[in-house]
Amino acid sequence: MRTQVAIIGAGPAGLVLAHLLHLQGIDSVVLERQTREHIERRIRAGVLEPATVDLLQEIGLAGRLLAERLVHKGLELLFDGVGHHVPLAELAGREITIYGQHELVKDLVAARLDTGRPLLFEVSDVALHDLTSDRPRVTFVQDGQTQELQCDLIAGCDGFHGVSRPSIPDGVLTAFEHLYPFAWLGILAQAPPSADELIYAYHREGFALHSMRSPHLTRLYLQVPPDEQLADWPDERIWEQLRVRLARDDPAWQLTAGPIVERSITAHRSFVVEPMQYGRLFLAGDAAHIVPATGAKGLNLAVADVAALAQAIVENRLDGYSERCLRRVWRVQHFSWWMTSMLHRVADPFTERLQLSQLRYLTSSPAAATSFAENYVGLPFDGGN
Amino acid sequence: MRTQVAIIGAGPAGLVLAHLLHLQGIDSVVLERQTREHIERRIRAGVLEPATVDLLQEIGLAGRLLAERLVHKGLELLFDGVGHHVPLAELAGREITIYGQHELVKDLVAARLDTGRPLLFEVSDVALHDLTSDRPRVTFVQDGQTQELQCDLIAGCDGFHGVSRPSIPDGVLTAFEHLYPFAWLGILAQAPPSADELIYAYHREGFALHSMRSPHLTRLYLQVPPDEQLADWPDERIWEQLRVRLARDDPAWQLTAGPIVERSITAHRSFVVEPMQYGRLFLAGDAAHIVPATGAKGLNLAVADVAALAQAIVENRLDGYSERCLRRVWRVQHFSWWMTSMLHRVADPFTERLQLSQLRYLTSSPAAATSFAENYVGLPFDGGN
Repeated sequence: MRTQVAIIGAGPAGLVLAHLLHLQGIDSVVLERQTREHIERRIRAGVLEPATVDLLQEIGLAGRLLAERLVHKGLELLFDGVGHHVPLAELAGREITIYGQHELVKDLVAARLDTGRPLLFEVSDVALHDLTSDRPRVTFVQDGQTQELQCDLIAGCDGFHGVSRPSIPDGVLTAFEHLYPFAWLGILAQAPPSADELIYAYHREGFALHSMRSPHLTRLYLQVPPDEQLADWPDERIWEQLRVRLARDDPAWQLTAGPIVERSITAHRSFVVEPMQYGRLFLAGDAAHIVPATGAKGLNLAVADVAALAQAIVENRLDGYSERCLRRVWRVQHFSWWMTSMLHRVADPFTERLQLSQLRYLTSSPAAATSFAENYVGLPFDGGN
Repeated sequence: MRTQVAIIGAGPAGLVLAHLLHLQGIDSVVLERQTREHIERRIRAGVLEPATVDLLQEIGLAGRLLAERLVHKGLELLFDGVGHHVPLAELAGREITIYGQHELVKDLVAARLDTGRPLLFEVSDVALHDLTSDRPRVTFVQDGQTQELQCDLIAGCDGFHGVSRPSIPDGVLTAFEHLYPFAWLGILAQAPPSADELIYAYHREGFALHSMRSPHLTRLYLQVPPDEQLADWPDERIWEQLRVRLARDDPAWQLTAGPIVERSITAHRSFVVEPMQYGRLFLAGDAAHIVPATGAKGLNLAVADVAALAQAIVENRLDGYSERCLRRVWRVQHFSWWMTSMLHRVADPFTERLQLSQLRYLTSSPAAATSFAENYVGLPFDGGN
């Protein structure tokens, strides 16, 4: 089998890249380890930056998204029992979009299949070869048969645990990592959201986040210790902690509960490798970097990567790919680290006072609120810093 | 001896408070451990916020300051060998003043002596008594004689190592503390400044700061390990490190050297006690809180405290003194911690990348630069957050 670009992974990064290349008449093969059903049901991110939506619209993939999304003009920072509205659209000029990543993946898979170009599910034993040659190869097993895919270059879009990054020899990449002393217990509940906006709550018992995926699905998170077990969190304990942490001075406000249809515990990690390329292999999205979920940046950063990669392929300027991406990657890493550090409880009274002072300042200084908003809403894909 | 307010310490906090009270016809006695010569020569801070200058001007103590000060409309952030001008006055609407703290102390001592009210130098064995009664007392020794000062209240303006804070019984105060893994080696050199503005330099070898006290005196700082000894830093090593860390792409730029007339190593510390009052004792300035020197806030915060204290005394609203001060104290603590953390080298590559990303963002986003500028220039004394 032969193609121009071998794309490892059918997440948002791989699928958006495949479509960008298709529109330029560039052939690709997308290889995915999981079933179609699995990737279309996997609950992940849900906040899209305007630059992400713009790109999807430009390439004709935003039809259902624009029809079904929720548009948020702001968010709320809740601390000391008082909610502070941050008018993102007013401060940064753009709105954010709420649309589940799994819904986006459905749209992207359908679009890919419509093009008639290959998207192979349930491939295993993927291995990358001859990365520093002009003719890299990918071998994999499908339906019990070993196959070989010859290509001009490989896009590693297979996430943090994928094979792409470990295919690069030791000593080539520099890894930067930061672990956080807490994790998130996340649930998806069949319940209408309890507020029109996301609520980021700083509370003595720990951080909580009220989010949503649709008018009928609420997504909620609780800060928990990093080694926490789901078994220790029966439904009643989850709802009780959410009620405590999201409580506010307004007696009329109530947290809407409902059946929990998905639950998981996710550690917080910051991770970057430099460079994001090796020979003919180009890493994009979680394969190259992980951000803590607080800033809602992972999906958006992955799309920014592949937008840059598609352009670099079309313009044959592949040498500059990594450098172009990394400036944005580190801006987003810094923002995600900062927002995570401001909102999560740690066992240090000095830090607690700093956090509260920063939250008060952020919700009272127009300059500070604008700086927050422009990072949260996201910089243009051609920007960076 | 009897007075209305016993003021412990003749630093800027104690002397400004004494003058504010004098102007309201309130009598005070200022007790100082050191000689007049000592406090008038001691090299300390040198950056005054506009709110500090406004207050000094309002109470008639800014004559020489306004004639001799340097006015700075901006400062420079230097990293990756490139200087980035931050136009403070343009962003925050106010300028900063460069005027040595020891020069200000000279002005304040002269003004105090002019009032004819007591300012006692070289007192020792100061002890505070009956703080929770209506008639607190201060005992001290002067010229070998033990004396007693009866008063209505005591202002503890005697710094971090003074007797006032330790006079409060154990268990009353909550202390918040943060130590930094570095110190500053500071020198005062008889040399004209090498630039018109302060230069805050982020460098692989460590932070450096180019500052000044007059057109003939340069004040320079180097980040060093916290346990560093002055004996390990002969003049040549100091100048060589300053040249390296302050180097820039501009080949015409040179660091002006000159005889070093003062040198010291100072640890960086953040410290706050809550509340800032106990019975009839009110803490102000370094007696209640210490900030790392990076944000140039210590002197300004001390003056903000005594402005609030004088008003509380005049209006007999002493109960609210601590709460009124602490909001500003924590804003300034957060800013000083943030600026210190952004600019000092630590042995962690992830943090290094975040620092550089933040510096790039700060020098390219108007919102971020404005947030920095409004904190550096300082909030109005009635503000806070």
